[in-house]
Amino acid sequence: MTANNATPPAPPVPSDAVGEGLKAAFRFHPAGVAIITATTDRGPSGLTASSVSSVAIDPAAIMFSVTRATGSAGAILDADSFIVHLIDGEHAELAQNFAVSGAERFTEAQGWTMRETGEPYLPAARVALRCQTLHTVTVGSSVVVIAQVLEVIEGTRGEPVVYLDRAFHSVATA
Amino acid sequence: MTANNATPPAPPVPSDAVGEGLKAAFRFHPAGVAIITATTDRGPSGLTASSVSSVAIDPAAIMFSVTRATGSAGAILDADSFIVHLIDGEHAELAQNFAVSGAERFTEAQGWTMRETGEPYLPAARVALRCQTLHTVTVGSSVVVIAQVLEVIEGTRGEPVVYLDRAFHSVATA
Repeated sequence: MTANNATPPAPPVPSDAVGEGLKAAFRFHPAGVAIITATTDRGPSGLTASSVSSVAIDPAAIMFSVTRATGSAGAILDADSFIVHLIDGEHAELAQNFAVSGAERFTEAQGWTMRETGEPYLPAARVALRCQTLHTVTVGSSVVVIAQVLEVIEGTRGEPVVYLDRAFHSVATA
Repeated sequence: MTANNATPPAPPVPSDAVGEGLKAAFRFHPAGVAIITATTDRGPSGLTASSVSSVAIDPAAIMFSVTRATGSAGAILDADSFIVHLIDGEHAELAQNFAVSGAERFTEAQGWTMRETGEPYLPAARVALRCQTLHTVTVGSSVVVIAQVLEVIEGTRGEPVVYLDRAFHSVATA
Protein backbone atom coordinates (compact mmCIF):
# COMPACT_ATOMS: atom_id res chain seq x y z
CA MET A 1 0.00 0.00 0.00
CA THR A 2 2.48 2.64 -1.14
CA ALA A 3 1.47 6.08 -2.24
CA ASN A 4 0.85 6.12 -5.96
CA ASN A 5 0.50 9.33 -7.90
CA ALA A 6 -1.18 7.56 -10.81
CA THR A 7 -4.12 6.45 -8.69
CA PRO A 8 -7.21 8.57 -9.34
CA PRO A 9 -9.00 9.92 -6.28
CA ALA A 10 -11.53 7.42 -4.94
CA PRO A 11 -15.08 8.56 -5.59
CA PRO A 12 -16.92 9.64 -2.45
CA VAL A 13 -18.86 6.76 -0.95
CA PRO A 14 -22.50 7.48 -1.76
CA SER A 15 -24.46 8.16 1.36
CA ASP A 16 -28.13 7.34 1.80
CA ALA A 17 -28.67 11.05 1.36
CA VAL A 18 -27.50 10.88 -2.26
CA GLY A 19 -29.89 8.00 -2.99
CA GLU A 20 -32.79 9.84 -1.38
CA GLY A 21 -31.88 13.03 -3.22
CA LEU A 22 -31.79 11.12 -6.50
CA LYS A 23 -35.25 9.67 -5.85
CA ALA A 24 -36.61 13.16 -5.15
CA ALA A 25 -34.89 14.54 -8.28
CA PHE A 26 -36.58 12.06 -10.61
CA ARG A 27 -39.94 12.41 -8.93
CA PHE A 28 -40.26 15.71 -10.78
CA HIS A 29 -38.64 14.62 -14.04
CA PRO A 30 -41.44 13.75 -16.50
CA ALA A 31 -41.18 10.50 -18.43
CA GLY A 32 -43.06 8.63 -21.13
CA VAL A 33 -44.63 5.31 -20.15
CA ALA A 34 -44.19 1.78 -21.51
CA ILE A 35 -45.65 -1.64 -20.74
CA ILE A 36 -43.10 -4.41 -21.32
CA THR A 37 -44.38 -7.97 -21.77
CA ALA A 38 -42.94 -11.43 -22.25
CA THR A 39 -43.93 -15.06 -22.03
CA THR A 40 -41.82 -17.59 -20.17
CA ASP A 41 -42.59 -21.15 -19.09
CA ARG A 42 -44.30 -19.56 -16.09
CA GLY A 43 -46.76 -17.81 -18.40
CA PRO A 44 -47.21 -14.18 -19.45
CA SER A 45 -45.48 -11.41 -17.47
CA GLY A 46 -45.47 -7.67 -17.68
CA LEU A 47 -44.21 -4.51 -16.03
CA THR A 48 -44.54 -0.76 -16.42
CA ALA A 49 -41.37 1.20 -17.19
CA SER A 50 -40.77 4.93 -17.37
CA SER A 51 -37.11 4.53 -18.31
CA VAL A 52 -37.41 3.42 -21.93
CA SER A 53 -35.48 5.45 -24.48
CA SER A 54 -34.03 4.90 -27.93
CA VAL A 55 -30.28 4.36 -28.17
CA ALA A 56 -29.36 3.78 -31.81
CA ILE A 57 -30.83 3.32 -35.27
CA ASP A 58 -28.27 0.86 -36.66
CA PRO A 59 -28.61 -1.51 -34.95
CA ALA A 60 -32.09 -0.37 -33.94
CA ALA A 61 -31.76 -0.41 -30.14
CA ILE A 62 -33.47 0.84 -27.00
CA MET A 63 -32.65 0.75 -23.29
CA PHE A 64 -34.53 0.62 -19.99
CA SER A 65 -33.87 -0.47 -16.43
CA VAL A 66 -35.71 -2.89 -14.15
CA THR A 67 -35.50 -3.79 -10.48
CA ARG A 68 -34.27 -7.33 -10.14
CA ALA A 69 -36.44 -7.99 -7.10
CA THR A 70 -39.67 -8.49 -9.03
CA GLY A 71 -40.77 -11.66 -10.80
CA SER A 72 -41.86 -9.68 -13.85
CA ALA A 73 -38.37 -8.27 -14.32
CA GLY A 74 -36.93 -11.78 -14.08
CA ALA A 75 -39.33 -12.95 -16.76
CA ILE A 76 -38.32 -10.13 -19.13
CA LEU A 77 -34.65 -10.89 -18.49
CA ASP A 78 -35.19 -14.62 -19.07
CA ALA A 79 -37.33 -14.35 -22.19
CA ASP A 80 -35.91 -14.88 -25.69
CA SER A 81 -37.88 -11.86 -26.83
CA PHE A 82 -40.26 -9.31 -25.36
CA ILE A 83 -42.51 -6.48 -26.49
CA VAL A 84 -42.10 -2.86 -25.34
CA HIS A 85 -45.43 -1.07 -25.80
CA LEU A 86 -45.05 2.73 -25.88
CA ILE A 87 -48.39 3.93 -24.59
CA ASP A 88 -50.63 6.98 -24.70
CA GLY A 89 -53.20 8.29 -22.22
CA GLU A 90 -55.89 5.73 -22.94
CA HIS A 91 -53.63 3.00 -21.55
CA ALA A 92 -52.47 4.83 -18.42
CA GLU A 93 -54.85 2.87 -16.20
CA LEU A 94 -53.58 -0.36 -17.73
CA ALA A 95 -50.01 0.79 -17.03
CA GLN A 96 -51.04 1.37 -13.43
CA ASN A 97 -52.23 -2.24 -13.25
CA PHE A 98 -48.77 -3.41 -14.27
CA ALA A 99 -47.11 -1.22 -11.66
CA VAL A 100 -48.86 -2.83 -8.68
CA SER A 101 -49.32 -6.44 -7.70
CA GLY A 102 -52.69 -8.14 -7.58
CA ALA A 103 -54.35 -6.06 -10.31
CA GLU A 104 -56.00 -7.68 -13.32
CA ARG A 105 -53.60 -8.30 -16.20
CA PHE A 106 -53.72 -9.71 -19.70
CA THR A 107 -57.47 -9.98 -19.97
CA GLU A 108 -59.17 -10.00 -23.37
CA ALA A 109 -61.40 -7.18 -22.14
CA GLN A 110 -58.25 -5.03 -21.74
CA GLY A 111 -57.44 -5.73 -25.37
CA TRP A 112 -54.59 -8.20 -24.92
CA THR A 113 -53.88 -10.83 -27.51
CA MET A 114 -50.85 -13.02 -28.24
CA ARG A 115 -48.34 -12.17 -30.94
CA GLU A 116 -47.61 -15.09 -33.27
CA THR A 117 -44.05 -14.92 -31.92
CA GLY A 118 -45.40 -15.71 -28.43
CA GLU A 119 -45.38 -12.39 -26.53
CA PRO A 120 -48.45 -10.81 -24.91
CA TYR A 121 -49.43 -8.02 -27.29
CA LEU A 122 -51.69 -4.97 -27.03
CA PRO A 123 -52.59 -4.01 -30.62
CA ALA A 124 -54.22 -0.73 -29.52
CA ALA A 125 -50.98 0.60 -27.99
CA ARG A 126 -49.43 3.49 -29.95
CA VAL A 127 -46.51 1.33 -31.01
CA ALA A 128 -45.10 -2.05 -30.02
CA LEU A 129 -41.38 -2.80 -30.30
CA ARG A 130 -40.52 -6.50 -30.39
CA CYS A 131 -37.06 -6.79 -28.85
CA GLN A 132 -34.25 -9.15 -27.96
CA THR A 133 -31.70 -8.40 -25.24
CA LEU A 134 -28.27 -7.32 -26.52
CA HIS A 135 -26.56 -6.39 -23.22
CA THR A 136 -27.43 -6.30 -19.56
CA VAL A 137 -25.53 -4.36 -16.89
CA THR A 138 -26.21 -4.98 -13.21
CA VAL A 139 -26.14 -1.86 -11.00
CA GLY A 140 -26.97 -2.49 -7.36
CA SER A 141 -30.35 -4.19 -7.27
CA SER A 142 -31.23 -2.98 -10.78
CA VAL A 143 -30.42 -4.18 -14.26
CA VAL A 144 -29.96 -1.97 -17.30
CA VAL A 145 -31.24 -3.73 -20.41
CA ILE A 146 -30.04 -2.72 -23.88
CA ALA A 147 -32.15 -4.45 -26.49
CA GLN A 148 -32.21 -4.77 -30.24
CA VAL A 149 -35.52 -3.86 -31.86
CA LEU A 150 -36.50 -6.67 -34.23
CA GLU A 151 -39.85 -5.34 -35.32
CA VAL A 152 -41.79 -2.06 -35.02
CA ILE A 153 -45.54 -2.69 -34.97
CA GLU A 154 -47.65 0.44 -35.41
CA GLY A 155 -50.83 0.77 -33.36
CA THR A 156 -53.15 3.72 -32.78
CA ARG A 157 -51.92 7.15 -31.71
CA GLY A 158 -53.78 8.70 -28.78
CA GLU A 159 -53.13 11.61 -26.44
CA PRO A 160 -49.54 11.67 -25.08
CA VAL A 161 -49.13 10.84 -21.40
CA VAL A 162 -46.27 11.35 -18.93
CA TYR A 163 -45.55 9.99 -15.49
CA LEU A 164 -44.64 12.77 -13.05
CA ASP A 165 -44.89 13.16 -9.28
CA ARG A 166 -46.36 9.63 -8.95
CA ALA A 167 -49.26 10.27 -11.31
CA PHE A 168 -50.12 10.31 -15.00
CA HIS A 169 -50.52 13.65 -16.74
CA SER A 170 -51.41 14.80 -20.22
CA VAL A 171 -49.12 16.97 -22.31
CA ALA A 172 -50.11 20.42 -23.52
CA THR A 173 -49.79 19.98 -27.28
CA ALA A 174 -51.74 23.05 -28.38
CA MET B 1 -22.29 -8.72 -19.75
CA THR B 2 -24.07 -10.00 -22.84
CA ALA B 3 -27.25 -11.92 -22.08
CA ASN B 4 -26.79 -15.25 -23.77
CA ASN B 5 -28.97 -18.30 -23.59
CA ALA B 6 -27.64 -21.71 -24.61
CA THR B 7 -28.67 -21.54 -28.26
CA PRO B 8 -30.30 -18.22 -28.99
CA PRO B 9 -31.94 -17.89 -32.39
CA ALA B 10 -30.00 -15.54 -34.63
CA PRO B 11 -31.67 -12.14 -34.51
CA PRO B 12 -33.08 -10.97 -37.83
CA VAL B 13 -30.75 -8.52 -39.53
CA PRO B 14 -32.26 -5.10 -38.81
CA SER B 15 -33.45 -3.44 -41.96
CA ASP B 16 -33.41 0.31 -42.48
CA ALA B 17 -37.16 0.08 -42.07
CA VAL B 18 -36.80 -0.97 -38.43
CA GLY B 19 -34.47 1.95 -37.70
CA GLU B 20 -36.83 4.41 -39.38
CA GLY B 21 -39.80 2.90 -37.55
CA LEU B 22 -37.95 3.24 -34.26
CA LYS B 23 -37.20 6.90 -34.93
CA ALA B 24 -40.89 7.52 -35.68
CA ALA B 25 -41.95 5.60 -32.55
CA PHE B 26 -39.87 7.78 -30.21
CA ARG B 27 -40.85 10.99 -31.95
CA PHE B 28 -44.19 10.66 -30.13
CA HIS B 29 -42.83 9.32 -26.84
CA PRO B 30 -42.57 12.26 -24.41
CA ALA B 31 -39.35 12.67 -22.42
CA GLY B 32 -37.92 14.91 -19.73
CA VAL B 33 -34.98 17.10 -20.69
CA ALA B 34 -31.45 17.39 -19.30
CA ILE B 35 -28.37 19.47 -20.04
CA ILE B 36 -25.16 17.54 -19.41
CA THR B 37 -21.93 19.50 -18.96
CA ALA B 38 -18.26 18.78 -18.40
CA THR B 39 -14.90 20.47 -18.61
CA THR B 40 -11.97 18.89 -20.42
CA ASP B 41 -8.62 20.33 -21.48
CA ARG B 42 -10.51 21.66 -24.51
CA GLY B 43 -12.72 23.74 -22.24
CA PRO B 44 -16.38 23.47 -21.24
CA SER B 45 -18.72 21.21 -23.23
CA GLY B 46 -22.40 20.44 -23.05
CA LEU B 47 -25.21 18.59 -24.71
CA THR B 48 -28.95 18.18 -24.37
CA ALA B 49 -30.26 14.70 -23.57
CA SER B 50 -33.80 13.37 -23.42
CA SER B 51 -32.71 9.86 -22.44
CA VAL B 52 -31.72 10.41 -18.80
CA SER B 53 -33.36 8.15 -16.24
CA SER B 54 -32.56 6.88 -12.78
CA VAL B 55 -31.30 3.31 -12.48
CA ALA B 56 -30.59 2.56 -8.83
CA ILE B 57 -30.48 4.12 -5.39
CA ASP B 58 -27.58 2.11 -3.94
CA PRO B 59 -25.30 2.91 -5.63
CA ALA B 60 -27.09 6.08 -6.69
CA ALA B 61 -26.94 5.73 -10.47
CA ILE B 62 -28.46 7.12 -13.66
CA MET B 63 -28.18 6.30 -17.36
CA PHE B 64 -28.39 8.11 -20.68
CA SER B 65 -27.14 7.67 -24.23
CA VAL B 66 -25.10 9.91 -26.50
CA THR B 67 -24.12 9.85 -30.15
CA ARG B 68 -20.40 9.33 -30.45
CA ALA B 69 -20.14 11.53 -33.51
CA THR B 70 -20.33 14.82 -31.62
CA GLY B 71 -17.47 16.55 -29.84
CA SER B 72 -19.65 17.27 -26.83
CA ALA B 73 -20.35 13.58 -26.31
CA GLY B 74 -16.62 12.86 -26.51
CA ALA B 75 -15.99 15.48 -23.84
CA ILE B 76 -18.58 13.97 -21.49
CA LEU B 77 -17.11 10.50 -22.06
CA ASP B 78 -13.56 11.78 -21.47
CA ALA B 79 -14.29 13.87 -18.37
CA ASP B 80 -13.54 12.63 -14.86
CA SER B 81 -16.90 13.96 -13.76
CA PHE B 82 -19.86 15.77 -15.29
CA ILE B 83 -23.09 17.43 -14.22
CA VAL B 84 -26.53 16.30 -15.39
CA HIS B 85 -28.96 19.21 -14.99
CA LEU B 86 -32.61 18.09 -14.94
CA ILE B 87 -34.43 21.12 -16.29
CA ASP B 88 -37.87 22.69 -16.26
CA GLY B 89 -39.63 24.90 -18.80
CA GLU B 90 -37.68 28.06 -18.08
CA HIS B 91 -34.52 26.37 -19.40
CA ALA B 92 -36.05 24.85 -22.55
CA GLU B 93 -34.56 27.55 -24.77
CA LEU B 94 -31.17 26.96 -23.18
CA ALA B 95 -31.56 23.23 -23.84
CA GLN B 96 -32.29 24.08 -27.47
CA ASN B 97 -28.98 25.97 -27.62
CA PHE B 98 -27.16 22.82 -26.54
CA ALA B 99 -28.95 20.72 -29.16
CA VAL B 100 -27.68 22.72 -32.13
CA SER B 101 -24.20 23.88 -33.09
CA GLY B 102 -23.21 27.51 -33.24
CA ALA B 103 -25.61 28.74 -30.56
CA GLU B 104 -24.41 30.71 -27.56
CA ARG B 105 -23.37 28.53 -24.62
CA PHE B 106 -22.05 28.96 -21.12
CA THR B 107 -22.55 32.72 -20.89
CA GLU B 108 -22.90 34.41 -17.53
CA ALA B 109 -26.10 36.02 -18.81
CA GLN B 110 -27.58 32.52 -19.19
CA GLY B 111 -26.76 31.89 -15.54
CA TRP B 112 -23.77 29.59 -15.92
CA THR B 113 -21.09 29.44 -13.30
CA MET B 114 -18.37 26.92 -12.52
CA ARG B 115 -18.72 24.31 -9.80
CA GLU B 116 -15.76 24.19 -7.39
CA THR B 117 -15.21 20.66 -8.73
CA GLY B 118 -14.65 22.11 -12.22
CA GLU B 119 -17.86 21.40 -14.16
CA PRO B 120 -20.00 24.10 -15.82
CA TYR B 121 -22.95 24.53 -13.49
CA LEU B 122 -26.39 26.13 -13.82
CA PRO B 123 -27.56 26.85 -10.25
CA ALA B 124 -31.07 27.80 -11.40
CA ALA B 125 -31.71 24.34 -12.90
CA ARG B 126 -34.26 22.27 -10.95
CA VAL B 127 -31.59 19.85 -9.82
CA ALA B 128 -27.99 19.12 -10.76
CA LEU B 129 -26.50 15.64 -10.42
CA ARG B 130 -22.72 15.54 -10.28
CA CYS B 131 -21.73 12.18 -11.77
CA GLN B 132 -18.86 9.88 -12.62
CA THR B 133 -19.05 7.20 -15.31
CA LEU B 134 -19.44 3.63 -14.00
CA HIS B 135 -19.97 1.73 -17.27
CA THR B 136 -20.21 2.53 -20.97
CA VAL B 137 -21.69 0.25 -23.61
CA THR B 138 -21.17 1.01 -27.30
CA VAL B 139 -24.17 0.30 -29.53
CA GLY B 140 -23.66 1.18 -33.19
CA SER B 141 -22.67 4.84 -33.30
CA SER B 142 -24.08 5.51 -29.81
CA VAL B 143 -22.79 4.99 -26.30
CA VAL B 144 -24.91 4.14 -23.28
CA VAL B 145 -23.46 5.78 -20.16
CA ILE B 146 -24.25 4.42 -16.70
CA ALA B 147 -23.03 6.88 -14.09
CA GLN B 148 -22.77 7.04 -10.34
CA VAL B 149 -24.32 10.12 -8.78
CA LEU B 150 -21.79 11.65 -6.40
CA GLU B 151 -23.77 14.69 -5.36
CA VAL B 152 -27.38 15.94 -5.72
CA ILE B 153 -27.50 19.73 -5.81
CA GLU B 154 -30.99 21.19 -5.44
CA GLY B 155 -31.93 24.22 -7.53
CA THR B 156 -35.26 25.89 -8.17
CA ARG B 157 -38.37 24.00 -9.25
CA GLY B 158 -40.23 25.48 -12.23
CA GLU B 159 -42.91 24.23 -14.60
CA PRO B 160 -42.24 20.70 -15.91
CA VAL B 161 -41.30 20.43 -19.58
CA VAL B 162 -41.20 17.50 -22.01
CA TYR B 163 -39.68 17.03 -25.42
CA LEU B 164 -42.19 15.55 -27.89
CA ASP B 165 -42.57 15.67 -31.67
CA ARG B 166 -39.40 17.82 -31.98
CA ALA B 167 -40.64 20.57 -29.66
CA PHE B 168 -40.89 21.44 -25.99
CA HIS B 169 -44.27 21.17 -24.29
CA SER B 170 -45.60 21.86 -20.83
CA VAL B 171 -47.30 19.20 -18.72
CA ALA B 172 -50.91 19.52 -17.57
CA THR B 173 -50.46 19.33 -13.81
CA ALA B 174 -53.91 20.61 -12.77
